[in-house]
Amino acid sequence: MQADLLIHNANVATLQGLAAPRPADAASDAGLRPDWSVAVSGHRIAWVGPSEEWDGNAERTLDADGALVTPGYVDPHSHLVYAGDRAFELALKLQGKSYLEILEAGGGIRHTVERTREATVSELAEAALPRLKRMRAQGTTATEAKSGYGLTTESELRMLEANAVLADALDLPVVSTFLGAHAVPPETDAQAFTDVVIDEMLPKVEAQGIARYCDVFVEEGVFSVAQGEAIFDAAKRHGLGLRLHADEIVNTGGAELAARAGAVSADHLLRVSDEGIEAMAGAGTIATLLPTVPLTLMQPQWAPGRRLLEAGVPVALATDHNPNNPVTSMTLVAQLGCFLLGLSPTQALTAATWNAACSLGLESELGSLEAGKRADLLIHAVPDLDHWVYEPGRQTVETVVSGGRVVAG
Amino acid sequence: MQADLLIHNANVATLQGLAAPRPADAASDAGLRPDWSVAVSGHRIAWVGPSEEWDGNAERTLDADGALVTPGYVDPHSHLVYAGDRAFELALKLQGKSYLEILEAGGGIRHTVERTREATVSELAEAALPRLKRMRAQGTTATEAKSGYGLTTESELRMLEANAVLADALDLPVVSTFLGAHAVPPETDAQAFTDVVIDEMLPKVEAQGIARYCDVFVEEGVFSVAQGEAIFDAAKRHGLGLRLHADEIVNTGGAELAARAGAVSADHLLRVSDEGIEAMAGAGTIATLLPTVPLTLMQPQWAPGRRLLEAGVPVALATDHNPNNPVTSMTLVAQLGCFLLGLSPTQALTAATWNAACSLGLESELGSLEAGKRADLLIHAVPDLDHWVYEPGRQTVETVVSGGRVVAG
Repeated sequence: MQADLLIHNANVATLQGLAAPRPADAASDAGLRPDWSVAVSGHRIAWVGPSEEWDGNAERTLDADGALVTPGYVDPHSHLVYAGDRAFELALKLQGKSYLEILEAGGGIRHTVERTREATVSELAEAALPRLKRMRAQGTTATEAKSGYGLTTESELRMLEANAVLADALDLPVVSTFLGAHAVPPETDAQAFTDVVIDEMLPKVEAQGIARYCDVFVEEGVFSVAQGEAIFDAAKRHGLGLRLHADEIVNTGGAELAARAGAVSADHLLRVSDEGIEAMAGAGTIATLLPTVPLTLMQPQWAPGRRLLEAGVPVALATDHNPNNPVTSMTLVAQLGCFLLGLSPTQALTAATWNAACSLGLESELGSLEAGKRADLLIHAVPDLDHWVYEPGRQTVETVVSGGRVVAG
Repeated sequence: MQADLLIHNANVATLQGLAAPRPADAASDAGLRPDWSVAVSGHRIAWVGPSEEWDGNAERTLDADGALVTPGYVDPHSHLVYAGDRAFELALKLQGKSYLEILEAGGGIRHTVERTREATVSELAEAALPRLKRMRAQGTTATEAKSGYGLTTESELRMLEANAVLADALDLPVVSTFLGAHAVPPETDAQAFTDVVIDEMLPKVEAQGIARYCDVFVEEGVFSVAQGEAIFDAAKRHGLGLRLHADEIVNTGGAELAARAGAVSADHLLRVSDEGIEAMAGAGTIATLLPTVPLTLMQPQWAPGRRLLEAGVPVALATDHNPNNPVTSMTLVAQLGCFLLGLSPTQALTAATWNAACSLGLESELGSLEAGKRADLLIHAVPDLDHWVYEPGRQTVETVVSGGRVVAG
């Protein structure tokens, strides 16, 4: 076999052999294979197997010297595209203001919305590109990206178009989610805006053809369960998959809605009830957990990661990158997934790769190291999964291979 | 003026003009000066001032292009030197075992002690050197380092000697603290070991001449306040300054002991009482806070940073690098100082530089950017202090100057 690149002599976390499309969890060993190698040809993985069984030729060989190799991270919840930043809000948060108080004071998301509405597609893509590059340099080789900072039909479509521009610019999968119902814009109310989302926005989002999912921020003071359900019904008619911001600040029954509607994922879940967990387990809904969010909101309480896993709910991890929580490192998210949510290192890796890929419908392309898949993989500066999370904040990723190309390291 | 290096056109956080030796806090602006420059000659800062007033020649100029420049970080609480690692304990912690339970089960510190006792000075220094380099690459240009994993006279002296070897190897200030009373070794009991520390160890530590401080782990099930006080009395007679592991897991009155004994710093303080805070404020004791420790212990409760600051207690921040919490990034610690302890960005920077230098008695050499001081400074990838902490986990340090040399970036 002729390969462009051979990663030799690695401790390969293959993530092979996991049930598709959405495994309940990984008390497995993440398919860890010591002394394995991965060969890459063009954009694709050509071969994965024991190092001593490799008998091909490779144009370039990287000796991993026993280091951990994993699939590239898949970040299944991000708000990558926006204009402006909100570093100045730190002072308000230090005064003890809550997310909803800052929102009501005209700050928060509205600050971002004003700037995003004024931006062109290329301005939006230009602002987001360094963020996406920083994500990629730290190991994220595929990401979800939501609209939701325009809140007018045209600006929402521009955000989705910016996602497509970014995906092309880096040849990196960016899965678009339409999140028109992210906040109620100041010029209207929740019910009237729900109607706008359903009657005006969704038909144009379908016609544009970029978004694959529809998301709603169901939360006290934002959109009700009934409004979320109506938007979901319409989104399904327009051919979109469903994801949900659920039970983050108060319990509204968001998890139950996600399960009932057949959403692929319910995200946040700090306030999920036992009934919500049971409903998700029954429906196979993925729980996408975002452990840096309570940190940046300065409300240090976390989602019940272990309880979700023990109930049989598959867990994914994500940055929730946004102007209030501009996290770009999935390694940090995985480390906090262990220390704050109680995931084991193999569960955290599964959550940051395979389960995340499943939640984006990309599991046939991404999320595990198998011949024929997109060649997205990471060489880490550590020998195993325990050391991958051992030091919180350590950036373990040394080499990033994205679509077959070495892009960092 | 002839300089070796000029950092030009920076947003310089000088930390100038703070009261010495231990300022109460920094509601100040951290001496932030836009459009300033810093000139370095040899090991020293030669000049700091407005960019347009620079009229010398520099062999090398780095244009900071408006970026934030700060003093190098000073890490005032670390257990840098040890043999072995304890990544395997993650599984025990995920089962819900507490620090004291792991200790009682023969794990924890005893695992490290067994390996450290067997190691030579050069083995200890060799194991620690990559850790110190990683700290330096992330901006730490001076650190404290404690003994306390030998728990025999000879092995404690070897740990202190390893600190001196490390300081020489990198030409980086390593301030040694004798922490013989870090744990009770299995072969004895707390009172008998207190006597060994006082009668056998302290005289030899003084004779060795490396340690500048003495520390004690006063905690339920480890050393009592009375034992700590006796060790402190002896340490003073042997010419050592005092620091204390105080009120971490249960409140034992550690903060009061630190204040009463004239310790320069009381560290951890999760369980400090109002009386303890009052005593520290009265005595000028620095509170050294270690925000990653509750994270790695999986006991997410944090020290009352804001309450300490509001009471007039000066706050320093540190990694507490150790085999159970192998954190090396002071940037992460500062970010968590804001998000978890409620410090403002200027308070966090003061805590990670000037106050930390004061707690190590190095304030005439380090901790602020002033002509004549050691040239330890950092160029960050961000424009200001808000953005320094905006993204938790972001490594903002791009260029590290340590003792006048560009060592990273």
